[in-house]
Amino acid sequence: MNAIGVDVGGTKIAAAVVSSEGEILNEVRYPTQAVPPNRLVETIARAVTEVKDGYAVGGVCLAVPGLILAAENKVVFSPNLHEIEDIRLDEEMGRRTGLSVTVENDANAAAWGEFRFGAGKDVDHLVFITLGTGVGGGVITHGVLLRGSQGSGGELGHVTIDPAGPRCGCGNHGCLEALASGTAIERRAREVASELPNSALGRLAIQRRVLGEDVTRLAQEGDEAALQVLQETGMWLGIGLAGFVNVFNPEVIAVGGGASRAGEFVLGPARKEVQLRARSPSRDLVQIQEASLGPESGVLGAAALARGEDGEYVLGPSKRVT
Amino acid sequence: MNAIGVDVGGTKIAAAVVSSEGEILNEVRYPTQAVPPNRLVETIARAVTEVKDGYAVGGVCLAVPGLILAAENKVVFSPNLHEIEDIRLDEEMGRRTGLSVTVENDANAAAWGEFRFGAGKDVDHLVFITLGTGVGGGVITHGVLLRGSQGSGGELGHVTIDPAGPRCGCGNHGCLEALASGTAIERRAREVASELPNSALGRLAIQRRVLGEDVTRLAQEGDEAALQVLQETGMWLGIGLAGFVNVFNPEVIAVGGGASRAGEFVLGPARKEVQLRARSPSRDLVQIQEASLGPESGVLGAAALARGEDGEYVLGPSKRVT
Repeated sequence: MNAIGVDVGGTKIAAAVVSSEGEILNEVRYPTQAVPPNRLVETIARAVTEVKDGYAVGGVCLAVPGLILAAENKVVFSPNLHEIEDIRLDEEMGRRTGLSVTVENDANAAAWGEFRFGAGKDVDHLVFITLGTGVGGGVITHGVLLRGSQGSGGELGHVTIDPAGPRCGCGNHGCLEALASGTAIERRAREVASELPNSALGRLAIQRRVLGEDVTRLAQEGDEAALQVLQETGMWLGIGLAGFVNVFNPEVIAVGGGASRAGEFVLGPARKEVQLRARSPSRDLVQIQEASLGPESGVLGAAALARGEDGEYVLGPSKRVT
Repeated sequence: MNAIGVDVGGTKIAAAVVSSEGEILNEVRYPTQAVPPNRLVETIARAVTEVKDGYAVGGVCLAVPGLILAAENKVVFSPNLHEIEDIRLDEEMGRRTGLSVTVENDANAAAWGEFRFGAGKDVDHLVFITLGTGVGGGVITHGVLLRGSQGSGGELGHVTIDPAGPRCGCGNHGCLEALASGTAIERRAREVASELPNSALGRLAIQRRVLGEDVTRLAQEGDEAALQVLQETGMWLGIGLAGFVNVFNPEVIAVGGGASRAGEFVLGPARKEVQLRARSPSRDLVQIQEASLGPESGVLGAAALARGEDGEYVLGPSKRVT
């Protein structure tokens, strides 16, 4: 049977009907900004009802950024979505849609999407990391989605890789997120721009705020300053990934998120650092590659995590979810 | 039924008959140094036969340091035990003992011992870390022993926590092992001794080589230099543990190994660092404590990982091993 995955993000709510094979049969999107106050639950329910549109559907899973108590189907903390905190979403949403509804962390859902249908579909051990405003992650080990005892595990962006490094949004210093996120690229771009004012990056920075995508574009055009920023970012990413290689011994590390569009400018130096720092045979085996599902990994993974009335996974994973 | 666990170490071979409740019914030990060349397999087999001594036993598991291919019951690489590399130990040992024999990494076995019978016996998520000459580790997440795709996962000692830090035995710089092992304590003790020559540590270092246990003893006597060494070690340990807290969201982190005898001198600063660096709610939940089985964790864990002729775990774990 099909399932519905919903990606509840800070900018959009995307709901999709997904088949057992990971095909998106129908999809709707609402900009989160357009949702009137106190109407978030209602809007999500509307998206679900609308996307269902006659399809036979066995269950729904919401992928939400922040801290999730999966066992209670509750969002404990979500930075931009306070409205849905501390609500039994399974009950609230179930009442409105007549469907079985569960809740999952968005990065875990995206990791599960890549595992079931994307870069990890042929393996049992996958590390997924997403480089966006922050750095999110999800781990599948021995076919098991690593949630941790409270569902707050898999926070790959918040391992310390430079104890005296820049302050991270989480309060710590030198987290992977503070050194390899899109935000970190922009910060470092400002610094390098002022060190190399005659570079294309330096000249742009005088005119306006430099975005991550500017750095990628300038690197593609061969600008030395932009190349340096991405090379350093890749090096930091690689320091973090080397640790994950030693800890998880995964077949694949899939890198997604906006900043992953810098592609080999970041992944090349990251791979080099992993070869320098990780141990054999783990480092010899691991494939570090771009995630293959793009922004759809969230709805696909959420759908694959949806459970029916009987508590079983609707899309019937061949591998284990705990 | 009972099982036999064997801890095949660089200094001793310890074999024990263990009951389903984790009770050691019989134990024998041989110093590894006394084993004649090319007699290691034979000696292990003798230890097994001797310890069996009339007990009903369903299977044997050998815990070996180094890289293990668990699926093939083979030691791929073991720093001080080259003799047993690349041998089908299940076949060689089975022939000699008439028992079903499997092989496991020693730190994973010790972690499993703490999980089944020790500091982690009441939880589903345990991080075990052993501070000895090196830093070893093992992780149980959702009741699953994390081996990774080749059985070389769980290498917690080789995550980078200070990219420009001291060189590690593995070739990398700034691994947790390079900063928080017994070896690291001795190295740092030499440095602090020369900075503070009038401290008790400084005076001892002039007379002879300072060992880890000297540092603990001097700290207990209140020597400032020794206290500083252990406080710094605990801080580095805490930086590593904070990452594991965010990644694994475990209920318990159990710290074992020789250097853990420094107890609160190391664990106190480690806990403080975890509170500074890890995220809620994971950091609020986790208990960081001394491992409870001591050096017996290896034989106990190995016994609990022994499989019978039918491939089932002899001591019948209630939790999952993959």
